[in-house]
Amino acid sequence: MIRLLDERNFPTKGLKLFAKRAAGNKVETKNFGEIVIEPFTVEAAQECDIVLLAVSGTFALEYAPLIVASKKGTTVIDNSSAFRYDAGIPLVIPEINGHLAAGASLIANPNCTTAVGAMALWPIHQKYRLKKVLMSTYQASSGAGAEGMLELEDAVKAYAKTGVVPAPKVFQHQLAFNVIPQIDAFQPNGYTKEEMKVAWEMQKIFDLKDTVKISCTAVRVPTFRAHSEAIVIETERPINASDCQDLLDTAPGVQVVDDPDSLIYPMPINAAGKNDVEVGRIRQSLVFGEHGLEMFVSGDQLLRGAALNAVLIAETCMASRAHQTEVETETETDRKSKKQKIEN
Amino acid sequence: MIRLLDERNFPTKGLKLFAKRAAGNKVETKNFGEIVIEPFTVEAAQECDIVLLAVSGTFALEYAPLIVASKKGTTVIDNSSAFRYDAGIPLVIPEINGHLAAGASLIANPNCTTAVGAMALWPIHQKYRLKKVLMSTYQASSGAGAEGMLELEDAVKAYAKTGVVPAPKVFQHQLAFNVIPQIDAFQPNGYTKEEMKVAWEMQKIFDLKDTVKISCTAVRVPTFRAHSEAIVIETERPINASDCQDLLDTAPGVQVVDDPDSLIYPMPINAAGKNDVEVGRIRQSLVFGEHGLEMFVSGDQLLRGAALNAVLIAETCMASRAHQTEVETETETDRKSKKQKIEN
Repeated sequence: MIRLLDERNFPTKGLKLFAKRAAGNKVETKNFGEIVIEPFTVEAAQECDIVLLAVSGTFALEYAPLIVASKKGTTVIDNSSAFRYDAGIPLVIPEINGHLAAGASLIANPNCTTAVGAMALWPIHQKYRLKKVLMSTYQASSGAGAEGMLELEDAVKAYAKTGVVPAPKVFQHQLAFNVIPQIDAFQPNGYTKEEMKVAWEMQKIFDLKDTVKISCTAVRVPTFRAHSEAIVIETERPINASDCQDLLDTAPGVQVVDDPDSLIYPMPINAAGKNDVEVGRIRQSLVFGEHGLEMFVSGDQLLRGAALNAVLIAETCMASRAHQTEVETETETDRKSKKQKIEN
Repeated sequence: MIRLLDERNFPTKGLKLFAKRAAGNKVETKNFGEIVIEPFTVEAAQECDIVLLAVSGTFALEYAPLIVASKKGTTVIDNSSAFRYDAGIPLVIPEINGHLAAGASLIANPNCTTAVGAMALWPIHQKYRLKKVLMSTYQASSGAGAEGMLELEDAVKAYAKTGVVPAPKVFQHQLAFNVIPQIDAFQPNGYTKEEMKVAWEMQKIFDLKDTVKISCTAVRVPTFRAHSEAIVIETERPINASDCQDLLDTAPGVQVVDDPDSLIYPMPINAAGKNDVEVGRIRQSLVFGEHGLEMFVSGDQLLRGAALNAVLIAETCMASRAHQTEVETETETDRKSKKQKIEN
């Protein structure tokens, strides 16, 4: 997040960093100089225009409402799932429903798997209207945090040395040389929370009002970074692969990577570190015929699904604030000029 | 295959082994003693009742017809894809369409991905009638042969030592810490041959006559052994998870592994080395409602998808030969007894 704010020349003079254990540490930035990490306090956070929360749901649930309560106009952008399903709080992917960010004091950042798939599906939905979405995922170890990545790394190193994969601590089962069809906790309907997040969040972000049926099987695979998704869709209007490729070619945040004859298609090793979501293997669905497509998507879940999306929301908020100030200034100028006219 | 013939006490006195490079080598078996591998000749193969071919499609295409041409009654069971789509040649999974093996001189063994999924889907199809099948696969490196497994093994060892994954030779791209959405060659419709095999072969084995729509995304993942499949089905008749679990519990070749609350579900590390296909994560489909289920399947593709299935076909052939001999003997006895009666 810090790197993105720096790289994208985020329009602010001052960047503050808050943390508990890391308080006192220094962070070097290009645009914001050397920053000393401060211990978090609600009061200090309230002095900021925008607060990006990269914390647990429990922390967010407690502190986000306190930060925005000050009426100083602070906007909180929360990365956790604490507020995502709250009808009054916008769940935002700027390229899709960025307008909801304007004026909101608390904005939720979506789940990473949802965000990656949504980038490919939104342009299609706008033109062809989705009816059904079926997703199977190939999710990286880093989806479970740095500890997840480290566990995979240590496991393959131990295997290389001893021929044995050590018992897991982060994942439910050995991830190295395995796939685990469970991410997050099981719900009463037999789906995991990760799978339901895809359904719930896509409904909310696309404002589908349950008109589209969405289902997911979320599977952890032994990769380090970037989530992949095999997606099958049924659409209301007839759709074909080449029109869809053209459509996605001009869609923001999406890169069409689809030249199978040259062995070019989305893959996690290429999508990692990339802002855009890779979409490829676009082909007519053998199940839904001319009303359906199948595709394969790979996206960096730490960027598109977390840090980048949060920073893009923050940029949207800054633009809306600047616009608001302009409007206010213009209104003031108008009033003065009108007053002058009347006086004249 | 040799191990299975031995373990299952295959009803034969003599086992012959043919190979090119390995000719002259000796193989120890429990039931068949020490066997010296012979160079392959059509004549030698014709002396056998059953010939199990584990060779390339090109070899099978040339030699299988020659072996069965002798009219000595040799049955060839071919593991390659050479004859699978030939309308006159049965494609057999004994638990599903084993009756087709009786009397056939050439029998095709199905693709591994098809065979694994078919075990779970056949009992469901019989009771609920399939309408749509959507599959996304998680396929092991050993699907590309021993070289594939070795490439993954060497890659993680090199990574553990140097931090760098070496360039691939067997796979199109680096497989370690990656997933590759391509298995086999691309077809004009944008699907790979592996994906089409699932559709074509399930149509043929289930005798669906294209009444069921089947589609697949086949993805290679960095595991050593056992293929997994996320499957969504739509059925003609209403279906629910618990009835389906009961049904599969008694189905041959299938093991229901479905206790999510205890973190129990199919996984390649558990399915590897097992004859039965693991089926779990059985739940109502959010897309197809009460006419649909979603599930996750893991099966040892080298057993169920190759060696085991071929040996099961061979067992079916032996049983049918034994039965045939009995019938012939009975007919002979009948004739004699009838003759006696007439004479009397």
